[in-house]
Amino acid sequence: MTPKLYRQIKKAGFPRKVLTPTLERKSKVVKISVMDWTADSFQEKEAQTIEECFPLRGKEGVTWINIDGCDEDVIQKIDTHLGIHPLVLEDIIDTHQRPKAEDHGDHVFLVLRMIYFNGDGSDIFSEQVSLLWGENFVISFQEQERPGDVFDGVRERLRSAKGRIRKEGADYLAYSLIDEIADYYFVILERLGDRIDSLEAELMSGIRREMPVEIHRLKKNMIFLHRQMWPLRDVINSLLRDEPRLVTKTTQIYLRDVYGHTIQINDTIDAFRESLSAMHDVYLSSVSNRMNEVMKVLTMFSAFFIPLTFLAGIYGMNFEYMPELKWRYGYFALLSFMAALSVFMLIYFKRKKWF
Amino acid sequence: MTPKLYRQIKKAGFPRKVLTPTLERKSKVVKISVMDWTADSFQEKEAQTIEECFPLRGKEGVTWINIDGCDEDVIQKIDTHLGIHPLVLEDIIDTHQRPKAEDHGDHVFLVLRMIYFNGDGSDIFSEQVSLLWGENFVISFQEQERPGDVFDGVRERLRSAKGRIRKEGADYLAYSLIDEIADYYFVILERLGDRIDSLEAELMSGIRREMPVEIHRLKKNMIFLHRQMWPLRDVINSLLRDEPRLVTKTTQIYLRDVYGHTIQINDTIDAFRESLSAMHDVYLSSVSNRMNEVMKVLTMFSAFFIPLTFLAGIYGMNFEYMPELKWRYGYFALLSFMAALSVFMLIYFKRKKWF
Amino acid sequence: MTPKLYRQIKKAGFPRKVLTPTLERKSKVVKISVMDWTADSFQEKEAQTIEECFPLRGKEGVTWINIDGCDEDVIQKIDTHLGIHPLVLEDIIDTHQRPKAEDHGDHVFLVLRMIYFNGDGSDIFSEQVSLLWGENFVISFQEQERPGDVFDGVRERLRSAKGRIRKEGADYLAYSLIDEIADYYFVILERLGDRIDSLEAELMSGIRREMPVEIHRLKKNMIFLHRQMWPLRDVINSLLRDEPRLVTKTTQIYLRDVYGHTIQINDTIDAFRESLSAMHDVYLSSVSNRMNEVMKVLTMFSAFFIPLTFLAGIYGMNFEYMPELKWRYGYFALLSFMAALSVFMLIYFKRKKWF
Amino acid sequence: MTPKLYRQIKKAGFPRKVLTPTLERKSKVVKISVMDWTADSFQEKEAQTIEECFPLRGKEGVTWINIDGCDEDVIQKIDTHLGIHPLVLEDIIDTHQRPKAEDHGDHVFLVLRMIYFNGDGSDIFSEQVSLLWGENFVISFQEQERPGDVFDGVRERLRSAKGRIRKEGADYLAYSLIDEIADYYFVILERLGDRIDSLEAELMSGIRREMPVEIHRLKKNMIFLHRQMWPLRDVINSLLRDEPRLVTKTTQIYLRDVYGHTIQINDTIDAFRESLSAMHDVYLSSVSNRMNEVMKVLTMFSAFFIPLTFLAGIYGMNFEYMPELKWRYGYFALLSFMAALSVFMLIYFKRKKWF
Amino acid sequence: MTPKLYRQIKKAGFPRKVLTPTLERKSKVVKISVMDWTADSFQEKEAQTIEECFPLRGKEGVTWINIDGCDEDVIQKIDTHLGIHPLVLEDIIDTHQRPKAEDHGDHVFLVLRMIYFNGDGSDIFSEQVSLLWGENFVISFQEQERPGDVFDGVRERLRSAKGRIRKEGADYLAYSLIDEIADYYFVILERLGDRIDSLEAELMSGIRREMPVEIHRLKKNMIFLHRQMWPLRDVINSLLRDEPRLVTKTTQIYLRDVYGHTIQINDTIDAFRESLSAMHDVYLSSVSNRMNEVMKVLTMFSAFFIPLTFLAGIYGMNFEYMPELKWRYGYFALLSFMAALSVFMLIYFKRKKWF
Repeated sequence: MTPKLYRQIKKAGFPRKVLTPTLERKSKVVKISVMDWTADSFQEKEAQTIEECFPLRGKEGVTWINIDGCDEDVIQKIDTHLGIHPLVLEDIIDTHQRPKAEDHGDHVFLVLRMIYFNGDGSDIFSEQVSLLWGENFVISFQEQERPGDVFDGVRERLRSAKGRIRKEGADYLAYSLIDEIADYYFVILERLGDRIDSLEAELMSGIRREMPVEIHRLKKNMIFLHRQMWPLRDVINSLLRDEPRLVTKTTQIYLRDVYGHTIQINDTIDAFRESLSAMHDVYLSSVSNRMNEVMKVLTMFSAFFIPLTFLAGIYGMNFEYMPELKWRYGYFALLSFMAALSVFMLIYFKRKKWF
Repeated sequence: MTPKLYRQIKKAGFPRKVLTPTLERKSKVVKISVMDWTADSFQEKEAQTIEECFPLRGKEGVTWINIDGCDEDVIQKIDTHLGIHPLVLEDIIDTHQRPKAEDHGDHVFLVLRMIYFNGDGSDIFSEQVSLLWGENFVISFQEQERPGDVFDGVRERLRSAKGRIRKEGADYLAYSLIDEIADYYFVILERLGDRIDSLEAELMSGIRREMPVEIHRLKKNMIFLHRQMWPLRDVINSLLRDEPRLVTKTTQIYLRDVYGHTIQINDTIDAFRESLSAMHDVYLSSVSNRMNEVMKVLTMFSAFFIPLTFLAGIYGMNFEYMPELKWRYGYFALLSFMAALSVFMLIYFKRKKWF
Repeated sequence: MTPKLYRQIKKAGFPRKVLTPTLERKSKVVKISVMDWTADSFQEKEAQTIEECFPLRGKEGVTWINIDGCDEDVIQKIDTHLGIHPLVLEDIIDTHQRPKAEDHGDHVFLVLRMIYFNGDGSDIFSEQVSLLWGENFVISFQEQERPGDVFDGVRERLRSAKGRIRKEGADYLAYSLIDEIADYYFVILERLGDRIDSLEAELMSGIRREMPVEIHRLKKNMIFLHRQMWPLRDVINSLLRDEPRLVTKTTQIYLRDVYGHTIQINDTIDAFRESLSAMHDVYLSSVSNRMNEVMKVLTMFSAFFIPLTFLAGIYGMNFEYMPELKWRYGYFALLSFMAALSVFMLIYFKRKKWF
Repeated sequence: MTPKLYRQIKKAGFPRKVLTPTLERKSKVVKISVMDWTADSFQEKEAQTIEECFPLRGKEGVTWINIDGCDEDVIQKIDTHLGIHPLVLEDIIDTHQRPKAEDHGDHVFLVLRMIYFNGDGSDIFSEQVSLLWGENFVISFQEQERPGDVFDGVRERLRSAKGRIRKEGADYLAYSLIDEIADYYFVILERLGDRIDSLEAELMSGIRREMPVEIHRLKKNMIFLHRQMWPLRDVINSLLRDEPRLVTKTTQIYLRDVYGHTIQINDTIDAFRESLSAMHDVYLSSVSNRMNEVMKVLTMFSAFFIPLTFLAGIYGMNFEYMPELKWRYGYFALLSFMAALSVFMLIYFKRKKWF
Repeated sequence: MTPKLYRQIKKAGFPRKVLTPTLERKSKVVKISVMDWTADSFQEKEAQTIEECFPLRGKEGVTWINIDGCDEDVIQKIDTHLGIHPLVLEDIIDTHQRPKAEDHGDHVFLVLRMIYFNGDGSDIFSEQVSLLWGENFVISFQEQERPGDVFDGVRERLRSAKGRIRKEGADYLAYSLIDEIADYYFVILERLGDRIDSLEAELMSGIRREMPVEIHRLKKNMIFLHRQMWPLRDVINSLLRDEPRLVTKTTQIYLRDVYGHTIQINDTIDAFRESLSAMHDVYLSSVSNRMNEVMKVLTMFSAFFIPLTFLAGIYGMNFEYMPELKWRYGYFALLSFMAALSVFMLIYFKRKKWF
């Protein structure tokens, strides 16, 4: 199955219909993990209720709350605690949004989409990741828990205090999360690129009947990635252009770096698409060439034997008076004539460069 | 029948010719339904004449008049009552306008187009919906009465006082109507997307002769939707950009949300179009492949039997002197030679990977 | 004959070569018709010389002079009378200009192109219409007299004093003329659209050999219309954007309306073009499918009879010792074997879904 | 040979490599022709050395020096005399520049490209024309002398004092030269357009095997013209936009006229390109149709005769016991059956609309 | 092997994944060459350690340090010495960046990509060149040492004090390096253009089966070049537009010249791409034509001989009563009839213009 390009979810209270590719949600289990640090302390725990993590504002240090599974209650409580617009709440719960950035002054709300392969690596899916970040906190909402999260790298750096991540503010953490999501596109592209390359190498040496379908599948993957990547680029660009109060000059530089990467990814997607189209052209030419070969074999066989068979037919007739039949060397004369005709035909086809 | 891409209407007094896809208008019955509410009251009725609803300005609360069937008289009266530009009147009556937004200071005039499937769901059509909204009223003009109106959801929310719709002003009502129209595109796209998906799945496993026509039909639907959607997006964008006096800050936020949806719809339409083009390519490749298969069968049969038949023809000739015919085992020798030739041919075709 | 995309005219004094599609000019007869009105008077006449119409400036009321046939003398006199730049004169005479608008302060000069079908309706041609309009006059230059002029509607409204045309100034008259020209594109598109629709309907049920040529012809018509329409849109847009002194606020609103129509026309042309391309794809697929059908019939016939004929050939040989020939039921045994082989072949082709 | 799209010239002192299509330079003979005029005098001569023409600045009247053959010495002397940037010198000598305009305050430097057909009119080439123009002089550099120069018209007008050319300044002369170059594109397009038209007319009535190559050649010509025209348009636009001090208001108006022409030329090139692509589609369809015809003939012949031949083969067998052979009217019965079968086949193919 | 469109490098400390085409790095040997000059002195040496070259700031004259092989230690030291942002360091080491320009006030950082053919000239690869340039120094970082460096020309000019290179500042040196890199694209394009031209010439006279693959390879090269060139153009443009403090007015003029070249290169790449697409179309048409030829030969042979063979089959039947067989001239009558039929067929095919 190729990735579905759309999905509609009709939830009781939410008449909103959306069109974003996604997998069936498997669980609604909510898992809340909290990391809390100042310049010299670091603390990590799993919270049972979201209230454990409050208050978020006015605290010292930075808090990162990661919520797997978008539970309405939990989000409602955060909403009430921080005084956030109800549309933000809706956007987090309805996980089929287009990536977007909203600067609400004392907090920035980002909708991002993370892509990953499905189980057997045959298809790509996307999942919504919402980021809500304020002066000294970042809350990330993921659709469901997933072992081998793309955020594991960030967690590791936080725990080991590697790099500057524990020295900088909440915006640097937000940048790190965005960066991980964007970088994961490279991983996906890398794997798809390998497939394109091997398909191309195969195509150069010969054709298989399944190739158009495989090219089509890769093309659809590229359409899908393009649709995911383009708005992500816009989101980062709007963070750079609008310069929200919460993004420091330092983080701006890092964000510009991510922005450059998204452009590179888009360039690569475009190059892959062009490449796939060109491959389809090569495939079609090859099929035509093959057909030409087959036709030539048929035509040569027919053109070679049909006249000979006709001649044999002539002398297989039962007319009473056919003088040639009586000739002593009639048979051999005919065989010789046939041989001569064959040689002539061979020369003719050779001249026409049919073989 | 595929959706007509244009239609011209020549009405007596209106020499204007227009090019918007539409269904034949079936009735000119006018139905006026009025909803009237303040913070604490709500009233709903069917008006016989438009005058019953006046005055519209200066009243407390919000009034929503929905008019099914564009009768010139009725619109003329509203025109006179509210002092509206005659071109607006023309635009309402001539239901083939391109979506547009006009800010006239004390009222905003919107032309929108609502899409829906025809009876058996095989085609899409569009109908004009005009919105005229002022300080405390919204008048919506629909081409004709239609059971299962897209506005039913709004009516329900008004009656049950669900959400914030009865607490906000006329602009929020206008937003709600726009939102319903835009959301209905998702429903249409959802259904078309299902068709595309099932056609694609079918195409992957085999081809049918009708497929190009079906792909063509879906493509035309996409061209049609694109033509309807693109100006709708512009309309909402101009409401956001020009910030008319009548649109409050609160409603702006909601409109921005709808705007995001229209972008998502356009993305999806584009992805569908690309997908359909790619499917046509796959179809063409498959037809070529099929032809190749058929040609191979023909060529193999011919190349296999034509030489053998020739040989049989040779020994069917009636020459008096053909020494082989007299040989004791001539017949069996020939049969053996034929068998050997057959085996040779089989090996040859096998090597050429023809089967 | 498809519409020529270009034409060069080399006139003695004008070394300028131009590239605009046009018909051969048939006559150089000049016809000058004048309409003159104030709020309460209306006068219409045919002038023999252009001097009869002077003075144009400083008069009360509005004067509309329509000149059929671009005579250099006449234009030279107007030029001298009004003091107009010689390039404007050249542009009127050399009727192969691209549509353009020039604001010269006390007069606006427009070059427009009017399209119409040729005699038998098989092709589209365009003719230049130049408008020169000042404070209280409009001079329109047409290439030649033509019965059933697109301006007849405006003349009728002027004579009958219908609408606001006699109440407004020269700019409203100019708008009315532009509006008529733009509206006529709808008529042309309407007729072309009907042809596309009927060709499409025909294509859906079967193919004819002439279809690609017909599609090609319609495509060229669309290329032609696009080339005519696009600059017209620019002309109207520049009148809106540059706000020439001679265009009143009221007329601006009407011009904006025409502008909307030109966008709609362009949208429709684009949709038609896409549609025609898609139709060509369907045609190609159908041809391929047809060929496939033909090939299958050939292959089935061949594959069915070739082995049988070979068998018959075997037993037509004249070997002296062919034991089967002597068998009592050899003939019937062979017939039975052939029948069995036929059934087997039928089942094989059925399995391969060849019929 | 189709026009080469690029050429590299590696000259001793100039490591710059360039990519502009051009013909081999045939001669390095330098010819300097000078025209000199004031309001009442006119003088024309051929100069042996460039120094004869100096001083250029501070003189009364306008001087036009046309240099055929780009000799480094000559240009070096002009350079020194007028104090021009060395890059300008390089650009004149290295005749593979992209058209560009540089405003150096007291002189404007233009690089233009003139196109012309080669000897037998089969291909298009371009040659660089550099214009260096100051307060009261224009120096034009052409790659080599060429009988029937495009500037002959200007020379003629200067000699005969026709038009305003001797009354205006150096910038009007420069405009006239640019105008001649731009107008020559119309001539080229005219001739190519004739070829396209006749090829199209031919295509409509039947196909030839060389057509794709001819379409390809015309396409390449269009790619070539587009590459030459696009920067020319930019050059003129930059003269209009940047309003160099040396371009008077009067000349601006004329330049705007040329600018309009370049847009028209670009429109025409685009229309031709689309037209050629559409013609290729028609060609492909026609080839497919032809193949279909051929296949039908083959299939009909085969399907018609193969069963009959099989029947004849049956009764040509030599079985001892074949009862039909003994029947009195067996032969005629078989002939009748064959006739009936033929009629049946004819009806069948007629029904399938194969002929 | 066609050029890989992407490559991922995963280095221990750098979790960044990148997508730029590159060759496997062969060595990590670092070579530091230093050139040092003032108006009257020039010194060239190979440094063992980077510290030998310090201090860079505040010195008189200009220093150019070229480092082959991106060693982290070396770059770290430069970083520390000059106080450069760590992201710059990362960008130099991770040699898969998209070209970009960063103005840091007291130094400008450029990432450029140099293209070159691989060993046997069959493929194109790109290598990162980073330039870090300050008031009086330029440091260039190349991925590895390479005999026949593109910078050799600059070195030569420095040594021989040719041109203005030793008279100008560090920015002129930087310009010279950029110019060499951009100019090398012309060399590559020149060679690819030759290949395209010869392939085209070959295509015009006949087709080979490998042509689609060759066209595909050249297309991919163009996609690759486009991806490399486009950002290079942006880099130079941003240097022109942002006018960094370090770029003098003089150098601006030279940079504008390079900018013009990059536009010319992009134009040429586009023209080549269009040309290659058109060539693929020609190829497809030629294959179709060929198939048509083959089919015609087959059909003519079949249609010619099948009826004749059938006739021969008829008179080869063994019916006892076949009156024709007994006729005296039956055999000759049949032969004459066959001859007549043959002539008729020949005329028929001639009329159909099959040969």
